[in-house]
Amino acid sequence: MYEDFDKIIIGIDPGTNVMGYGVVGVKRKKPLAITMGVLKLSKYEDHYMRLHRIYERVTGLVAQYLPDEMAIEAPFFGKNVQSMLKLGRAQGVAMAAALNRQIPITEYEPRKIKMAITGNGAASKEQVAAMLQRTLGIKQEDMPEFLDATDALAAAVCHFYESSKPIQTHGSKSWKDYVAHHPDKVKN
Amino acid sequence: MYEDFDKIIIGIDPGTNVMGYGVVGVKRKKPLAITMGVLKLSKYEDHYMRLHRIYERVTGLVAQYLPDEMAIEAPFFGKNVQSMLKLGRAQGVAMAAALNRQIPITEYEPRKIKMAITGNGAASKEQVAAMLQRTLGIKQEDMPEFLDATDALAAAVCHFYESSKPIQTHGSKSWKDYVAHHPDKVKN
Repeated sequence: MYEDFDKIIIGIDPGTNVMGYGVVGVKRKKPLAITMGVLKLSKYEDHYMRLHRIYERVTGLVAQYLPDEMAIEAPFFGKNVQSMLKLGRAQGVAMAAALNRQIPITEYEPRKIKMAITGNGAASKEQVAAMLQRTLGIKQEDMPEFLDATDALAAAVCHFYESSKPIQTHGSKSWKDYVAHHPDKVKN
Repeated sequence: MYEDFDKIIIGIDPGTNVMGYGVVGVKRKKPLAITMGVLKLSKYEDHYMRLHRIYERVTGLVAQYLPDEMAIEAPFFGKNVQSMLKLGRAQGVAMAAALNRQIPITEYEPRKIKMAITGNGAASKEQVAAMLQRTLGIKQEDMPEFLDATDALAAAVCHFYESSKPIQTHGSKSWKDYVAHHPDKVKN
């Protein structure tokens, strides 16, 4: 079902109360929304139960959609050390699910994601959702109830934009990407 | 090989530079050291590679020693939000490996562990190691080079002491434990 995409990116917005996820498929250099949703965790009182549910859901999504890459919305600063520790755990279990399948992970700050989607790093969640709906041509009835889902989708789309930039200056893929984008420079 | 233990506890001291682990087996209500060691992570520059290595190692230890319970040394406060986020991720991937096998996790503050082992919450790592060596009868040649290993073993032994207390006032196991410790109260 997803074989006809050139690349599949899963976006995750991990949190200890709600986790958002969004899956984007790339076809003819254009991003398309495959699915998005949220995992509500506040109903579980037990902290480990929440972590386990995040791990299970991300593992399930990875098994179902076979993403090539994962993009995570990751704030660099938090309110306090306690909330950062909890957020780190939520990120950690989501990352474990990806690392388990050797899926490369890239983190993006919320500001960076908003900037990539709307051109404004201080855009509201609603503005991000509206822009995604237009850019990806998502039908109104397919728009999610919770903005954590569009936030996660935004992380995936942001990663698509970033990884589509003509010259990569970071990471181990730069040479491969350079060759991919400059076929004329390759001697056969 | 480990079937003759009544219970096996794995202790983990997660960190982003070194992860310590220790496995304790309980036989005739006494703790015995099964194994301990460290995973050195500073050689990996990539943060995700470190998380992946933690996940793989804990998964491997869990598969090998089939622990019934996991004890994690978990500081409640850290230097700053950045270090707590990183620590949270390291804890998260270690926890994912346990949650994957439905192994219950209990966290202990470093102070609590030191108190349980030595009677002094401000004991040094060396004092903890020396007391463990005596209590568990570990041969000098079996003592590890790195104190992260004995710290992890201490977490497991602390959990053994805590879960051996006659009356459990927390958790879902209290009734089972009460029955186990008061066989005279059970009508057959």
